[in-house]
Amino acid sequence: MTLDQAALTDGAELVLDGARYPAVWLRDNCPCPACALPGSGQKLFGITDLPAPAQLRIASAQRHADELTVRFAPDGHLSTFPVSLLEAHRLGAEPPADERTEDAKTRWTGADFADPATLPRAAWDAFVHDDAVRARCLDALLTSGFFLLHGVAVRERAVLEVAEAFGYVRETNYGSLFDVRVEPNPANLAFSSLPITPHTDNPYRDPVPTIQLLHCLTNAAEGGDSGLVDGFHAAAVLREHQPEAFALLAGTPVTFRYTDESAELSATNPMIGLDPLGRIKEIRFNNRSMRPVTALPAARIPAFYAAYRAFAELLYRPEAQLGFRLEPGDCVVFDNTRVLHARTGFTAAGNRHLQGCYADLDSAASSRAVLRRGLGAGIGGPDDTSAPAREGSAR
Amino acid sequence: MTLDQAALTDGAELVLDGARYPAVWLRDNCPCPACALPGSGQKLFGITDLPAPAQLRIASAQRHADELTVRFAPDGHLSTFPVSLLEAHRLGAEPPADERTEDAKTRWTGADFADPATLPRAAWDAFVHDDAVRARCLDALLTSGFFLLHGVAVRERAVLEVAEAFGYVRETNYGSLFDVRVEPNPANLAFSSLPITPHTDNPYRDPVPTIQLLHCLTNAAEGGDSGLVDGFHAAAVLREHQPEAFALLAGTPVTFRYTDESAELSATNPMIGLDPLGRIKEIRFNNRSMRPVTALPAARIPAFYAAYRAFAELLYRPEAQLGFRLEPGDCVVFDNTRVLHARTGFTAAGNRHLQGCYADLDSAASSRAVLRRGLGAGIGGPDDTSAPAREGSAR
Repeated sequence: MTLDQAALTDGAELVLDGARYPAVWLRDNCPCPACALPGSGQKLFGITDLPAPAQLRIASAQRHADELTVRFAPDGHLSTFPVSLLEAHRLGAEPPADERTEDAKTRWTGADFADPATLPRAAWDAFVHDDAVRARCLDALLTSGFFLLHGVAVRERAVLEVAEAFGYVRETNYGSLFDVRVEPNPANLAFSSLPITPHTDNPYRDPVPTIQLLHCLTNAAEGGDSGLVDGFHAAAVLREHQPEAFALLAGTPVTFRYTDESAELSATNPMIGLDPLGRIKEIRFNNRSMRPVTALPAARIPAFYAAYRAFAELLYRPEAQLGFRLEPGDCVVFDNTRVLHARTGFTAAGNRHLQGCYADLDSAASSRAVLRRGLGAGIGGPDDTSAPAREGSAR
Repeated sequence: MTLDQAALTDGAELVLDGARYPAVWLRDNCPCPACALPGSGQKLFGITDLPAPAQLRIASAQRHADELTVRFAPDGHLSTFPVSLLEAHRLGAEPPADERTEDAKTRWTGADFADPATLPRAAWDAFVHDDAVRARCLDALLTSGFFLLHGVAVRERAVLEVAEAFGYVRETNYGSLFDVRVEPNPANLAFSSLPITPHTDNPYRDPVPTIQLLHCLTNAAEGGDSGLVDGFHAAAVLREHQPEAFALLAGTPVTFRYTDESAELSATNPMIGLDPLGRIKEIRFNNRSMRPVTALPAARIPAFYAAYRAFAELLYRPEAQLGFRLEPGDCVVFDNTRVLHARTGFTAAGNRHLQGCYADLDSAASSRAVLRRGLGAGIGGPDDTSAPAREGSAR
C-alpha cells in the first residue's frame, strides 16, 4: 500500500491503495480529540463549523506505518487517521451495511429446518445464564428472524421477563402484554379457535413493534399449531419472478387501521418497504386491518391486486412455512418486520392460552453487540470503539 | 350522480359519477357481515379466498338511494356499498392520506409564533381535565410538531405522567426517563453547559423514538434557553431551491451510532426520509452520532457534503428557530421525526435540570382521534366506524 502523493496535487482528495477519499470526507471524520470525543467517537463539531467547501483542501499528507497524517488548508488543522479506518470505509465499494435489510439476512423456507437440530433454540436457563447462548439466539433473531426458548416458567407475565432479558417491552394500547385465548363472541379472529393465515402484527401502528414474543401457558387443544414464514424470502422471490409486481407493492402506500372503543390507530406504508438503495427492509402484511387502496388510479388497480395476490400466494405456500407446536413453557421470539406468523385452527373445546408482548430490534441488536464484546468476537472497525460515554439527549 | 350501466358491459369495473371502481377492488372492500366484522371492519377473508382475477366480474349493479348493490360473478356474492364509502375512496384522485407526511403538516418558522398567543400551549390542569384542550394540544403536536405545557408538578418523574396522559413511555437503554443536567467531565455535550445546535434525538435507534418530552425542574442558569426548528420546512425549502441536493440526502443511507459500556446502537437511514410517493416523512439530523458516509463513490462525496451543509444551514438559520425558555413546571412535547431541538449555552455555575422521556406518535394520534369522537368532531368516512372490537395479535 502506498500513498500516491500525486493525487494530492489539487488537494481535493487523497488516494490510498487505489481508494479515493475527498478532503471534506476526511475532515468530517477526523478522529482527533478536538473533533471526536475519545471513547464514544461522538462528533464535537457541526458541518457548518468546517471551512467552506471552496476553501477546504488537503495541504499535505504523510504516511507513517499504520497512520496517515493529513494537514488541511486553509486552517492548518492536523488529522491522524489509522489506515485501518480508511480501509474499512472505502467509498462506494459496496452498499452500506444495514443489518435491518435483506443484505444481513439468511433467507429460508420450512425445508431449511427439516432437521430439528437446525432450529435456533435454547433452554431458558441457558439463555439467561450463558452469554454465548444468548448471543447465538439474538444472532438467529437478527439473521433468520426468530428463535425458540423452552423451559420458560409456566406462569403469567413470564413473557415480559423474556423480553427484558435482551431488550425493552413496548407498551401499547393492549397493555404491556396481551392474552391469546378463546373468548366467547370474539371481536377478533385471534380470540377464536379459527385458523389464522400468515401475517405481521399491528401494521396500523407506526412505529410498528419490531419484535413479537409469544409464550405458551396451555396448549391442550387439538390443532392450534404455530407457523412462521420468511417474508423477506417471499418478497425476494416475487422480485425475481415478477419484478413489476414487486415494484408496485413497494411503491404503493397502503393504509392499515384498527379501531375499538379506546383506540383508533392508522398507518400508511407499503406492504414491502425498501431502503433508498432498493433493499428489502420491512414487510407489512395483514388482510384483516388493510383499508381500501386509493393510491392508484383505477386502471392500475387490477395490476396491484394481481401483485398482492401473487405475494400472498408465495407467503401462503405450505412449503414456505415452518410449522411447530408451542408447548407450555415454550416461547417464540420473532422479527415482526420480516417474519409472518400463523396458527392452525383448533378444537374449540380445547384449552389454549398464550401470552404475548412486543419489543424492538434495535435493543436486541445492541444486546448482541455488547455480548460479542465479552465473548471476544470482535465486530471490527475503528469506529466500533466503546467507552463509558452516553449521548442521551441534548437541548 | 348516476350509475352508468354501460360501464358494466364487460363487468371489469363500475363507474359511478365518473369515478371508476374495478371489480376486484369492490369485492375486496365488501362491507357485508360475512366479509368484514361488523363494528371494527376487520376483514374476514384473505386475498386468495377471492375468485381468481380472470373469473371475477361484476354481474350486475343496482343503485337504490344511497346504496349500491353489486352482484359478482362467478360466485354470485352480493355486496351492498354505501355510496358515501365509494365517494370517499375515489381511486387515484389524490395521494393517500398519511398524517405522518408533510401533506398533513403546517410548516413554520420562528416568526410564525412571534405573537406568543399563537403558541400551542396549555395549563397542565386543563390538559388533564378538559378533553378539548388535550385534543387541541395533540392536534398541534401532529400538525405543527409540538406543544407546551405549563404548571406541570415540579417533581421528579412528572414527565412520565405527561407522556401517559396521551400515550405510552418508550423505555430505552437510558431508562424510562433521563436527566439533563451538568455533569462533571461529561461524556456527552448534553450534560455540559455548552450550546447544542438543532438536532433530532437517537437517530441511531430504529424504531427511533417519535415523540420527545422535556420537563423543566430547575432553570436558574443564565442562558440555557430552548429552541425548536421545523425540519420538514427546511427540507421543503431545500427541495424547492436545490432539488438535486434534496434528492441526494433522501437517497443516501447514513449510519448513526452510539456506544457506551452497556449499549451499542446503530441505524442506517437517510437524513430526509420519504414515503414511496416522495413525500417528506422523517428527518434524522445529528452530527454527533453520524458515522462516515460510505454509500456513495468518492466522486459524489463533495455533492453530498454540499447538500448536507446546505440542509444544515437552513436548519441553523436564526429565523428558522422558535426560541423560548423552559421554566420550572414547563414541559415541551415534540415530534422527534420532524422537529429539531436545541439549547443555548449557559453559565456553568447555574443550576439547570430537565427530565425527559420518549413516547410515540401513533398513540398520540389515536388519543386525538378518540377524543374527537367524544367532542363530536367527526373524522368522516364510512370506515371510521368504531366498536368494542380488538384485533390484538393472532397466531
